[in-house]
Amino acid sequence: MAYLNDHYLKLQAGYLFPEIGRRVKQFTDANPDAAERLIRCGIGDVTEPLPQAVLEALHKAVDEMGVRETFRGYGPEQGYGFLRDAIAKNDFQDRGIPIDADEIFVSDGAKCDSANLLDILGHKNKIALMDPVYPVYLDTNVMVGNTGPADESGRYSGLVYLDCTAENGFVPSIPDEKVDIIYLCYPNNPTGTVATLDQLTQWVEYANRNRAIILYDAAYEAYISEPNVPRSIYEIPGARNCAIELRSFSKNGGFTGTRCAYTIVPKSLEAETAEGNFTSLHPLWNRRMSTKFNGVSYPIQRAAEALYSEAGKAQVTALVEHYMGNAKILREAAQAAGFTVFGGVNAPYIWVKNPEGVKSWDAFDKVLNEANVVITPGSGFGTAGEGYFRISAFNSRENAEEVARRIQALKW
Amino acid sequence: MAYLNDHYLKLQAGYLFPEIGRRVKQFTDANPDAAERLIRCGIGDVTEPLPQAVLEALHKAVDEMGVRETFRGYGPEQGYGFLRDAIAKNDFQDRGIPIDADEIFVSDGAKCDSANLLDILGHKNKIALMDPVYPVYLDTNVMVGNTGPADESGRYSGLVYLDCTAENGFVPSIPDEKVDIIYLCYPNNPTGTVATLDQLTQWVEYANRNRAIILYDAAYEAYISEPNVPRSIYEIPGARNCAIELRSFSKNGGFTGTRCAYTIVPKSLEAETAEGNFTSLHPLWNRRMSTKFNGVSYPIQRAAEALYSEAGKAQVTALVEHYMGNAKILREAAQAAGFTVFGGVNAPYIWVKNPEGVKSWDAFDKVLNEANVVITPGSGFGTAGEGYFRISAFNSRENAEEVARRIQALKW
Repeated sequence: MAYLNDHYLKLQAGYLFPEIGRRVKQFTDANPDAAERLIRCGIGDVTEPLPQAVLEALHKAVDEMGVRETFRGYGPEQGYGFLRDAIAKNDFQDRGIPIDADEIFVSDGAKCDSANLLDILGHKNKIALMDPVYPVYLDTNVMVGNTGPADESGRYSGLVYLDCTAENGFVPSIPDEKVDIIYLCYPNNPTGTVATLDQLTQWVEYANRNRAIILYDAAYEAYISEPNVPRSIYEIPGARNCAIELRSFSKNGGFTGTRCAYTIVPKSLEAETAEGNFTSLHPLWNRRMSTKFNGVSYPIQRAAEALYSEAGKAQVTALVEHYMGNAKILREAAQAAGFTVFGGVNAPYIWVKNPEGVKSWDAFDKVLNEANVVITPGSGFGTAGEGYFRISAFNSRENAEEVARRIQALKW
Repeated sequence: MAYLNDHYLKLQAGYLFPEIGRRVKQFTDANPDAAERLIRCGIGDVTEPLPQAVLEALHKAVDEMGVRETFRGYGPEQGYGFLRDAIAKNDFQDRGIPIDADEIFVSDGAKCDSANLLDILGHKNKIALMDPVYPVYLDTNVMVGNTGPADESGRYSGLVYLDCTAENGFVPSIPDEKVDIIYLCYPNNPTGTVATLDQLTQWVEYANRNRAIILYDAAYEAYISEPNVPRSIYEIPGARNCAIELRSFSKNGGFTGTRCAYTIVPKSLEAETAEGNFTSLHPLWNRRMSTKFNGVSYPIQRAAEALYSEAGKAQVTALVEHYMGNAKILREAAQAAGFTVFGGVNAPYIWVKNPEGVKSWDAFDKVLNEANVVITPGSGFGTAGEGYFRISAFNSRENAEEVARRIQALKW
């Protein structure tokens, strides 16, 4: 008699984005004419082609795979040295941050990594999540049994929710109770806001004091435009002892369909065993990746490496400027329409407060039906997201300008 | 206080292949001259370039990613329809096997899938593994806590080991005790042997009788040369109700460094909940893949699709014939040298019985030191593999012929 993992049965409805897809399909099926007018600003998916340097690297690597002498079979599960070295140098060492190449693990996605990291953590941990939050952190904790069932509001027992509100600038305050694992994401998805060096320093100090671990998602780091905003948690002294950082090539290089990311597990990061000893997590993650993963496709790793060439860097900058140009247009349009608006300065997301009394999914349906624009309902990211919606700036300039016009024309 | 997953601390030594790598490095560092003579027949890694049809598909897909109109961002987490359809048609429906495209989940590796499937299964299951066995099945069960500690022989408590020996033709007999999950792999890694239709039918009947689940690894299906050897577990009536099948493009298309595979979870496959109800596993796996995975790189999926074109099929046949030509040479050489030999007819592995009294790792060291050939020690695959070694046929013809000569020259 084979048993399934009952924790899956605690999961609520669908994962947010499939549910959006379902509603959009229902709308376009019923309104084939409007389907042509539809503009998607929902899921944070890039729209612009891969940078030229990446295309060249891909073609070259494909050619190598066609010749016996340069063909590559199984690669190192942790990623090729050429890519780990490029990451260590460009993203860390050149910025004075002490991260070694062998602390970097290349993967096929930050989403996967954020989920898979739970493999090496125990079940006794008290988990703290921001609210609103990227749904994957939450759902994957439910799946492994780190929570009880959900209540009527959609919150699961056993978790600590850190409310992120306009009042605290969407950076949660240190909780009164002791927690063991803290998910932080800055620049933040979904609110588009950032944490200052001081705010992050408080969290690092809290974590080190309590020997807790911060899972720091910096997937949107490339979008930081203001000075003094930390680009990596490791800019904070002591973070090497308490933090794992997730990075991605999805949003800087446009790799959402190409798939490459990386995670940093510093060798100095320790966790407690059942017997009360502390030991480094690095060998556990290394074992996890060697045993359950087989590395990223060789041509894709060459593609990621190309983002660190001089040409690649310039092309990434141009891509980021393109999307942040959209963000500015959308942010200003929402403000002009009378909305209270957050984000959109150091991140490609605009977090918009609904008109008084309007629920998130009602705003979603209204914007879909009347403006034919797909946004993301704030409540899809958690209870504290209710009353907001998110606009993604990942689009063509033409579409961003059209969405700006439609948002301003919409009557609430 | 963050806690780690203590089950990882039960894992023994290194994963087999890293340990082989360590010994080889030690040898080549100490004997730089022999390093040049070294031939690797250890890890089952392909050596020949990607098929022409694959290269063309890759270049074309890369070009698409460079143009806004054809650029692809996030794809379906389950795989693109074009690839799922090609798989369903070519590998199943055209052979009269009723598998639908939406029962196929495209992934970045059968190794990953075999590990990840444990996510959706409960912890109460009694797990049965063949011995010798692909180490990933074993280690991933240890990691999730499905076992107790290992004993001196290296066997973990809580598991049921199904001995595969020369006596039973390396196909285990149905166990006396009831088990819930059974891993079967045919054509078998490491022994290179196959199961007949009758033998697999017995397992399917056992599983259906006990509502157990078979995890069937058919990664080497393309190497079957004899008639009447099942290519898929779904050739057996009733298997849709009790089996998950793993397939890979690593060994037919040479994708070990390119990364693409797929897993079939039939909609009719059910498992039991804590409350004693039976429910389909398909939605659980779909949820797992949507939440913890982001699909395979678009160009790579186009590359896999190309394996099903007429040209691609012919090129796969040529690749398989090449490796199986090597297998024949190696098999015959080992026989000529006086060894008792298994496999190598329907699989690219030759399973060689050591001379009486010689241990697996001693044979490994002797072949490495005296013949400068890397093989795999049978005991690395489990207790029942002691006294054997595995030769991989993945190599150039020239190397296979040279290994054949060296094996025959070796004095024991």
